[in-house]
Order: sequence, then C-alpha cells, then structure tokens
Amino acid sequence: MQLRVDSVRSSDAAGSGHPTSSMSAADLMAVLFAHHLRYDFDHPDNPANDHLIFSKGHASPLLYALYKAAGAITDEEMLTFRKRGSRLEGHPTPRLPWVDVATGSLGQGLPVGVGVALAGRRLDRLPYHVWVLCGDSELAEGSIWEAAEHAGHEGLSNITAIVDVNRLGQRGPTRHGWDTGAYARRFGAFGWHTIEVDGHDPGQIDFALGDARNTRRRPTVILARTRKGEGVNDVDNREGAHGKPLKDAEHAIVELGGERGVTVKVSPPEVSRPPHTFTGGPLALPSYPLGEKAATRSAYGAALKALGAARGDVVALDGEVADSTKTEEFAHAFPERFFECYIAEQEMIATAVGLQVRGWVPYAATFAAFLTRAYDFIRMAAISGADLRLIGSHAGVSIGEDGPSQMGLEDMAMLRALHGTTVLYPCDANQTAALVAEMADVSGISYLRTTRGETPVIYEPGERFPVGGSRVLRHASDDRATIVAAGITVHEALAAADLLKQEGISVGVVDMYSVKPVDRAVLNEAATTTGNLITVEDHRPEGGLGDAVLEAVSELGPRVVKLAVRGMPGSAAPGEQLADAGIGRDAIVAAVRRLL
Amino acid sequence: MQLRVDSVRSSDAAGSGHPTSSMSAADLMAVLFAHHLRYDFDHPDNPANDHLIFSKGHASPLLYALYKAAGAITDEEMLTFRKRGSRLEGHPTPRLPWVDVATGSLGQGLPVGVGVALAGRRLDRLPYHVWVLCGDSELAEGSIWEAAEHAGHEGLSNITAIVDVNRLGQRGPTRHGWDTGAYARRFGAFGWHTIEVDGHDPGQIDFALGDARNTRRRPTVILARTRKGEGVNDVDNREGAHGKPLKDAEHAIVELGGERGVTVKVSPPEVSRPPHTFTGGPLALPSYPLGEKAATRSAYGAALKALGAARGDVVALDGEVADSTKTEEFAHAFPERFFECYIAEQEMIATAVGLQVRGWVPYAATFAAFLTRAYDFIRMAAISGADLRLIGSHAGVSIGEDGPSQMGLEDMAMLRALHGTTVLYPCDANQTAALVAEMADVSGISYLRTTRGETPVIYEPGERFPVGGSRVLRHASDDRATIVAAGITVHEALAAADLLKQEGISVGVVDMYSVKPVDRAVLNEAATTTGNLITVEDHRPEGGLGDAVLEAVSELGPRVVKLAVRGMPGSAAPGEQLADAGIGRDAIVAAVRRLL
Repeated sequence: MQLRVDSVRSSDAAGSGHPTSSMSAADLMAVLFAHHLRYDFDHPDNPANDHLIFSKGHASPLLYALYKAAGAITDEEMLTFRKRGSRLEGHPTPRLPWVDVATGSLGQGLPVGVGVALAGRRLDRLPYHVWVLCGDSELAEGSIWEAAEHAGHEGLSNITAIVDVNRLGQRGPTRHGWDTGAYARRFGAFGWHTIEVDGHDPGQIDFALGDARNTRRRPTVILARTRKGEGVNDVDNREGAHGKPLKDAEHAIVELGGERGVTVKVSPPEVSRPPHTFTGGPLALPSYPLGEKAATRSAYGAALKALGAARGDVVALDGEVADSTKTEEFAHAFPERFFECYIAEQEMIATAVGLQVRGWVPYAATFAAFLTRAYDFIRMAAISGADLRLIGSHAGVSIGEDGPSQMGLEDMAMLRALHGTTVLYPCDANQTAALVAEMADVSGISYLRTTRGETPVIYEPGERFPVGGSRVLRHASDDRATIVAAGITVHEALAAADLLKQEGISVGVVDMYSVKPVDRAVLNEAATTTGNLITVEDHRPEGGLGDAVLEAVSELGPRVVKLAVRGMPGSAAPGEQLADAGIGRDAIVAAVRRLL
Repeated sequence: MQLRVDSVRSSDAAGSGHPTSSMSAADLMAVLFAHHLRYDFDHPDNPANDHLIFSKGHASPLLYALYKAAGAITDEEMLTFRKRGSRLEGHPTPRLPWVDVATGSLGQGLPVGVGVALAGRRLDRLPYHVWVLCGDSELAEGSIWEAAEHAGHEGLSNITAIVDVNRLGQRGPTRHGWDTGAYARRFGAFGWHTIEVDGHDPGQIDFALGDARNTRRRPTVILARTRKGEGVNDVDNREGAHGKPLKDAEHAIVELGGERGVTVKVSPPEVSRPPHTFTGGPLALPSYPLGEKAATRSAYGAALKALGAARGDVVALDGEVADSTKTEEFAHAFPERFFECYIAEQEMIATAVGLQVRGWVPYAATFAAFLTRAYDFIRMAAISGADLRLIGSHAGVSIGEDGPSQMGLEDMAMLRALHGTTVLYPCDANQTAALVAEMADVSGISYLRTTRGETPVIYEPGERFPVGGSRVLRHASDDRATIVAAGITVHEALAAADLLKQEGISVGVVDMYSVKPVDRAVLNEAATTTGNLITVEDHRPEGGLGDAVLEAVSELGPRVVKLAVRGMPGSAAPGEQLADAGIGRDAIVAAVRRLL
C-alpha cells in the first residue's frame, strides 16, 4: 500500500525515522482519510475542519505520506523529511499548516485533543470531530487517563481515539501486547465507548470510524490490533525494528507493491457557519487605593473577571484550587467559559493548548508549585508555539506554614528555560491587574507569578506596565548600590533601602516585574553607575530573577550579590520564612553592607 | 473520637491546617493502627516494619494525632504543629523518623508506595505491607493510574490503597462524589481487588483491612465513603470548610466527646529476619582507549553494569527506552534488580523514591527531555531528601534529526533549581564511567546528562573526576580568554582553541563536568587572570552551565559571554544543529574575537 511505500521511502531518504510504526497504522489512516475525515486542505483555517492529531508523533512518515496522498505536499517535499530546513521534521510541528500541535512526547496528543473537542462543544459550537492516533505504548502515561477521565466525564462524543495496538514498544513488547480487551476494560471504566477491530481490515475500520462519529454522549476509542512493520516480512512484527529505516528499502517497496502514486480525495466539512462568539465590552480593571493591602492573587482573580467581561475570547482553567488561585471570580461570572480540570495539571495545560488551537485565549491557574507537574506539557506547548497564559499562585516561602511542598520555588527557572516565554511577577494589586490585561495580547507562553499574602499597594490604579519594562522605585545620584527585586521582595527591598538611608547609605531600588524579558537598559544603567547590584527573590538561586539580571549585565562585569532561597524551608509564619531564607529586609541590608 | 479531637486541637493551635480532611479519615486510620499496622515505633529502621504513607499529606493533623496516640510524640509536641522549627510541618516530611517521604503534592504517595512494595517483593523479600491513605480528589491525577497499572500488572498484593472518599475537594464536590463504584470500576479494570465500605463503620473497616492484607496476587483498594468534618455539625459534609481550623474549636471538642487521652498499642512486626541482599565484588569499570570514539550514553550503560556487579545494592529503572539510554546492559545482566517502568516517567521516579526508602541505590534513566514529565516528582523527592541517581540521555540539539520534542534543553535548569542536587555532564566515555561510579555515594539527587552521538575519548581510563571538580584542558600564561564547556561542547571548545591558536590567540579551555556544584576555584582563577569567559552549552541559556558560571563569579565581575541554544531547532544533522544553534566551534571563535 502506497502509504507504507512512502513511509519507507521518506525514512530511507532521511537515513532515520520510524517507518515500522507508520506501517502498522497505515490502514487505519487510509480509511479515515478516504471516508471519514472532513478537512479542507486548501483552507486549513476553516473553522469547521475536523482535527487530526498524531499523538504517536514518531509516525510522522505516515502523516507526511497522507499529506502527499491528499495533494497537500509534493513527493519532492516528502523526501526532504528530517533534512535541515525542511518543515517535515522528525516529529510533526505546527510549522505545517495542517498540524495543530507538536507531538513526539508521548501521551500528549490525546489530552490536547480533549481540549480541541471541548472547544468544539462548548465554545465554537461546531460539529467538527477530533481524531487522535495513539500508540499502545503511550497508554502507560498517566496523562492519557487524565484525558480519558476528562472526556468521559464531559461525555465528549466529538473525539475519537484510534489506538494502533501493534504490541511492540521501542525496546520490546508492551505490558498488554495484543490484549485489546485490557485497554477496552480501562477505557470502558472511564466512560468511553470501546470498539476492538483488526487494524488491517478496511471493512472493520470503516465500520468503527462511522460508529465513532455517530456515537452520542460518549467518546469512542477504537482499539486496533495491528502489526508493526506490516507488509514487509523482514520487519513485520519483529522486535528491534523500531525507529530505523528499513535495511533494504528497495526490496521492501517491491514487496509492498511498488510505487503507484495513489491519491485520496478528502471531503471538506459540510457545515460552513462561523464559530460561536461571546460578546465583550469595555475593559474596567479593578483598582486598589494606594497604601491599602491586597493579595496579588486576588487582584488576578478580579482582573481576569474584568477581562472576561471585556473580551469574549478569554477563557479560564483551574486545577481544582480556584478558591485559592482566585480564578473562581471568573468561574462564577462566566461559567460557560470556565473549565474545571480537577487535580490533573497535565490535562489542564493540554486542555488550554487545545482551546488555543481554535483561537481562544486561555488563562490556566494552579499553585506555582504544581505547575511543575505539567512541565513536559508546557515544554511541548512552547515547541507548538502555543499562546498560553499561565498563573502560578502561592509562590515562594512567603506562603508560610504550609511548608515546602506547596511553595513554588522553581517556577521561574522552569518557565524561563523555555523558548519564547514571558515571566511576570507583580508586587502589588494594580500592577497585577495591568499585567493580567497585558498578557491577553502576548504571544507564546506567558507566566504570571502571584503571592498568597497581602502586600501594600504602591502603584496608582491605571498605570501601565509593559512586558520587558521595570520600575525604578528609588534612585539618587549618590546611590552606592542598586537592589533589584520583584514581587514580595520589592517591599523588603524598599524597607531595606529605608533602613540603609538611616545609616546614611543611599541605594536604588528597581521593581523588575518583567523577569523575562528583563529590562536591560535599566540594569545596564545601574551596572555602569553604582556598579553594585543586589538581587533578591523568593525563589531558588538558580534560574530566577538573579540569573536574569546576571545574564543581562554579564558582559559589563558589575559586582552582583544574589539573595535567594538556598536552604530547605519548613513550616513557619510568612515573615519568619522570609527572614530564615535570607531574603528579608535585614538580609538585604547585610548584603549591601558586605558588598560596599 | 480522640483523633478528631487532636486534629481540631493542633490545627487550632497552629491557626491553620486541614482538620476536616483529617476527621473524615480518622476511623479508617484508628482501626488500621489498632489492629492491622505492624510497626515498631521504637525502631523505625526495623526492616520488617509496615509502611504507612499519607498520600493526602494535608491530613497531617490526623497523622500526628496517630503518632501521639501511639506514644511516639507528646501532646506538647503535637501542639507545635506548623510552628517555626517544629518537625510537625504543614505536610509530613521525613524529618520525622516514621515518615518515608514528603507528601503534599497530591497523587504521589500511591506511586511511591508501589516502589516500596516492589522493594519488599523483589529486593528485600520481606512480608511488610504498604498502606497508603489517599484522598478522592487526587484520583484525578494521572500518576495514580500509572501506579495502578504498575501495581496491578506486577500483582503487588503487599500494597493497599485506602481511599477516603469524602466527596469534597478543596473548592467543591469531586467529579464522582460518593460514587465509590466509579472508582471501583476504574481500579478493577487495572487489575486491583476492590472493596467498598462505610468509612465510619469500624466493623466494615476492620474486615476490609484484613481482607486487603490476606488478598493474594492483586493489590487492594478500599474505597471508603466518609464525611469530611465528620463529628462536628458545623463542618460535617459542608463545602467551604477545607483547609482551615474550626471556628469554635472548644465547642467542637465537646461535641466530639472531649479530650480523653486515648492511646493505641501498635503491634510490632512478627518476622525479624534481615532483608535479602545481593552479592557484589570488585569494581571493574569499562575503559576506552584515548582517541577512540564512544557515546557517553553507551559508557553509562557499560559502567552501570560494572557497578551492578560490584555492588549488590545498586538497582536500575528505565522508561521503556533502555535500548536508547543503554540501561539495557544492566537489565540483561541483573534482571532481578532491573525495573521496567514503561512510558510512565512519573511512576519511574516514584518507584525509585520508594526503592531508596528501603536503602537501595537506584539509577533511573530516560531521555533528558522526558524527565521534564516527572519534574514535580523530582521536586518532592528533593524535599524528601531522597538519594536518587537520574540519567538523562539524548541531551541537546546534538541528537540531530529527531527534532525539538526529543531534545533535552531544559534539564540542567530543572535539576539545578532543586535543593541539594548534583548535576554532572561528562564529555567522554572514561569520564562518564568514573562519574557513574562516583554517583553511587552522592547523597541527594544527582543527575548525569549523556549525549546520543559518539565523542572522542580524551581522558585516560581510571582517572578520577570528583563531584565539584573540573579539568583545565588548555592553559597558558598568555591566555586572553577562557572557554568553559561541558559535555559535547568540550570538543567544540578544543577545536575552537586550536583555530584561535592558528590566529595567534591563546585561550584556555575548562571542562566543567560538574555543573552543580561548580568549581569556583578554577573559575575565580580564570575570572581574575584572563577576565574574559566564554561559556558554551547545548542547553537553553537559562539555568544551565552559563548561569552556574555567572553565579560563581558574580562578585568578581569578569566579562562573560554565554553561548547557548536560543532559537527553536528543527530537524538537521548533529553537526548542522550545533552550528545553527551557535554553539559550534565557529560560533565560539567568533565570540572570542568579539570579546577581545
């Protein structure tokens, strides 16, 4: 069959790739393309298009062979597979207009597909169908079962998982081999309609795909028994043939019936109505009087609600902690646009990725500490070029008594290390509100770090805080050092500056609310004037504010002292925690004295 | 009942905490302690002790009340709950000798429990039982189902999950409320024995716990319908009562029957034989001749096998990629000590944590990129003070054609940002072998980063590479700059130094194989002599080698140029990738020229 031939050819031309994993799923996808997929290849932005996600991204040779058969790419381009500059990468990415999200880290395609299906059902209100090709190996990932629970509980009949049960993982047999019943019991328990078929029998496949599309009130999983490397005796159902081109591609092509250039006509969607939209209005951000105290997490909640009223495209997600993160304000005001993801952070991020595939503007919140649970999903979202807004509350030791398991101390490091991200860390309520609104138009992944406790309002309502900016809060010509802080430590820095002033030592204070990108101009100024910088952050010393500052001034060579959380905190009151971690006002004063 | 009274009292004294989540599970734990747990509180290191893990770590008031009832702590200490310096933290940590691991990030206790149970079954060969108290909310975490699959497939009858189905999560009802059947169907599908009981009926609880201990060939889950806040009308089964002390503690204590100082006699284990051990022998690390080419991942595989022969306590885990990471060498040689975790990285880390609870020395490997999947588990392992050795293969853009989803580019940032970690990144096969052996005795979490492709052997076999050290590979009195590299970029740095030499520019080269802790002495020397540093790494600019160098020299103020992967790579050959990312020899030469 031509899809197998082309999978063999492209991998052979590349000298690497996964032809055998493509060959097992070829019949499944051939029948899908010929009879069930509704897709307008000339208009990938048609909102009524079905969505096809290769959760087993390594089967990219098959995907590209399908694109060629559908007339979307030429044979010549197909043979650029895995070559420098080619958009046909080893694993699919949205550089291709027909690909929604990057895959290649297993167990992510189905969770993202659930997000797209939710967009179809609850937001777009269009009858497109989401088809997800999964491998059997990836069913070991817990994220698959988070997705299964989410889709099952929501009764998402507009998503179908097609599992290519080829029995062989990368290094050998899977746990359940060809026992599709084992998988059927699991998916069935999670509320899915299950169909077990011979994945090389076009009639059975055709029936199953039709049944899946017509099933009501439940998602469907098609569990297809297949043979890895099907069609070529040398690799058919053999261990040790994963992830490499066939040894004798020429002979394999002959065995598969030779090159014939078969094409497939994919039917476009039948409906052509535009997606549903929600109305907006003028933006009226919350405002807080100077000198009052308010938690930045509360300001996030109030600002998101205001933004939701202003923009119909804004949606919110939360990981069953909306009363803590304060997403609940939005949830109460706009229940249609709120997605409760329960305690399943991977699924929360994946859902957000799925929603933005369809152009919605998601804000997803949980404790900063628990975003670590979804790091691989955030990493892949960055590769997808997804536009996500993440909110991590309860950042740092300043949460107090709950102890280290609840303290986000690595979140800035984790987010900064991804490509194209924005990291924001406000210190007061008005600044938070402004940044929440700002984030709506930031592309890529933007992250807002909020604080549990109340902090004084130091900025006037309505001030603007652009991404990449900072605020010089104290500055005098006789400054002998500059303290760079963000979030909770801004207030400690201001207090430290006051204490030093009493000793006759003048120091500058910068509120570096934009941790990535960082305000190089202001830092360069400080580095070349005072030449002494003290950074202070409620975060680990690695990868946070201090490193952002060091990176910015590294070629200028000022002296920099980095204050951060270096020990392992226990339980204690917030003020005690800041002092014990050496990031409170006294520690800043001591650091300045030491440096001068 | 006294456990509820004490949960109310300690939370009241602390002014925070989770009494209602403790009250729902009090009857379950009371019966467990009185009749089923086999534990010697005077000898927490007794290898035959049962293990009790509070996966719902926020129920710490109940745990501490149990310790008090068992005579392990005093009433006075119990009332230090959540106070500065107290070992009774908001969420349990192993600062307490009876606590195996820190919990508080939900969905981790059961996965770790599976690791302890595997240690009992396959390594220690002792009949201890692992009891895990779970919340119902946390069953939404995919990691729970990774654990369910692992335990079910292994037929681990020595673990029992006791689920406190109190129907209420933090912000409101769970997905399934009191429908214990929904959970029973799911666990049943994963091969578990399921029992549904009234969690406030001591007779039903007693029967279920006995049944669980006596069940053969399958793990057991007890699904107990309970009432959050049971016993106090004001909070009983009420929303909005999560995570706060009771308003009127005095009245609640009266309602619960008052303080009575009830104690419980916990029976010690019956068996007293020592755990099984595996024999070792002399260490014969693999050696590679100078100038040959070998992949560091292959050297890891060979060295781990050698280490396994030398030390009976070394065990290995892999995430179904052992043919790529090269853990397969150990797996073939020591199948009894190898744990295949399939594609479930969270469960792999949790299993490793569980094994080290019992003193085994685990090495766990997958692609560096996919360790991001388990970041929250690694974070919690650091809080537990767990001794883990992690190996991330296929690091960086140098993997070539597979593309960004498979490239570990954030792994050093992620690992460095955790407390007490060690990050090692060897550049040749002999160095790798030495470091693999070195890691066995490193406490905390140590991480070895390996490279997919072959690199030249530049060190003699048998040389030592201590943690925290570095190697000065090029050094002359007329050096005008120093290049600091690690892993794959060491070879690019050497090539760049040769190219510059031809131009008459002498530069030093340092192999910074220990990225954390970093060799401050050598860096300080370079910073104060040449004053110009160029760091080059196959990693994102944030949180990796460059930042480690900047941090070390920040107070000296040299000029530092950081070369790292700043764009989004696609598919290309390894050499092309290094060049395109600006971390190859030509980029280094250009950076030196620019700096001078």
